[in-house]
Amino acid sequence: MENNQPLILVTNDDGMFAPGIKALVQVAKEFGEVVVVAPNSPQSAKGHAVTLHDPIRINKVDVFEGIEAYECTGTPVDCVKLAKFKVLHDRQIDLCLSGINHGSNASVNIIYSGTMSAAMEASLDQIPSIGFSLLNYSFDADFGPSKVIVRKIVQAILEKKLQETKLLNVNIPDVSLDKIRGVKVCRQADGRWVEEFQEGEDPRGQKYYWLTGRFIMDDVKDGTDIHALDKNYVSVVPSGHDLTIYPAIEANAYLEKIRL
Amino acid sequence: MENNQPLILVTNDDGMFAPGIKALVQVAKEFGEVVVVAPNSPQSAKGHAVTLHDPIRINKVDVFEGIEAYECTGTPVDCVKLAKFKVLHDRQIDLCLSGINHGSNASVNIIYSGTMSAAMEASLDQIPSIGFSLLNYSFDADFGPSKVIVRKIVQAILEKKLQETKLLNVNIPDVSLDKIRGVKVCRQADGRWVEEFQEGEDPRGQKYYWLTGRFIMDDVKDGTDIHALDKNYVSVVPSGHDLTIYPAIEANAYLEKIRL
Repeated sequence: MENNQPLILVTNDDGMFAPGIKALVQVAKEFGEVVVVAPNSPQSAKGHAVTLHDPIRINKVDVFEGIEAYECTGTPVDCVKLAKFKVLHDRQIDLCLSGINHGSNASVNIIYSGTMSAAMEASLDQIPSIGFSLLNYSFDADFGPSKVIVRKIVQAILEKKLQETKLLNVNIPDVSLDKIRGVKVCRQADGRWVEEFQEGEDPRGQKYYWLTGRFIMDDVKDGTDIHALDKNYVSVVPSGHDLTIYPAIEANAYLEKIRL
Repeated sequence: MENNQPLILVTNDDGMFAPGIKALVQVAKEFGEVVVVAPNSPQSAKGHAVTLHDPIRINKVDVFEGIEAYECTGTPVDCVKLAKFKVLHDRQIDLCLSGINHGSNASVNIIYSGTMSAAMEASLDQIPSIGFSLLNYSFDADFGPSKVIVRKIVQAILEKKLQETKLLNVNIPDVSLDKIRGVKVCRQADGRWVEEFQEGEDPRGQKYYWLTGRFIMDDVKDGTDIHALDKNYVSVVPSGHDLTIYPAIEANAYLEKIRL
């Protein structure tokens, strides 16, 4: 590899052996030097969890032909921290790509998503970062169209750079390429999960609950990621980590009158 | 309890036996009927993780005198989901209180925090929710001043209601009550962690990394939570779950020109 090629960190939350990360690595290596640090087991819905109370291990593995890759026992965010501060500690990471996730991370799913949390962790250090997700939860999903889309988006971003953000949440409709109508840069739709726990009894007779649920989209207006995906556009949401609701600062100023 | 009393859900991420949640329950029960659903073990830095791949269990426990309480084997977010959809499924929760966390959740720590993620999960269903954190990581921290502050803030919010937000991130300086200068409603400061992994070898000779790190505050300007805390004010950040960076939508519209 030549030294002026971009250094691209690839990670995910479905683990090192998911077809989605293989597709992402295949595209990423067209653009530069790729290093993979990914969980050694599925870590979906781990949010921005980090491992404080246990040690983490990484092992070099030969999973992607000709690509330096490490499996990690931690969460997706742990992977990025280890990549930044141990694996690549003396080098500048030019781009972090996370995914391709098996399943949607549109709307409020971004806050539960290990894929997006990994990308966000990289973006905290000003590394341009993109999380990609395909709207198909299956292990056998067809990542062919996604690879074309990832290639075009990465190319555009390496040329024009991300503006006013370091993080994109990219979701891809699960349709053939000829049905995809284009790319929409949009806002995160509001939404929420209504849980329907599966209840059962374990072999010892103890009751358990197993999380399931339905996603409720309250907000499908034009300009949202859910709306774009529904119309077969790829949704791109420029995202950050500032959760402040600015208009609510003034609106709740009555709290400053509290006398202690 | 009278039926017109507020129903208050209490949770945390340090687990059912942390002194911080005991302090919170003691104050909460002055204002209404309290139900506790909290992790049965410490769950710090679990972010917005949910448990998909394993069953979760809850057990009724007698930890807080006269208070209905359940320990849960899941994450803080799991606790809130179970509370909403199983424990209290037919009742309206008027307020969710999370904490009092042992340690700061100011600045970007909100995204790693189990305490704040639990409160955010409740807020997704429009339940007014407050996460409280004391800037002292010790199990032996003095929660006396915090109890006075929690009492005054809960009272103000029950009277005046949260405006334009359903979620507050409240951090409390670790000083005696007479040194606390008041309450500031402010924005989340920017910041980031620089990791310094402790490296070692386990008894089987395998190398491990253990996460440690330093928090870098790049943004200590007036109007931020870090600035308020530094001046011995209680910081209150009205927070949400929309991560969109709105000015970046237009700024990255060049991506819409991609032809697939």
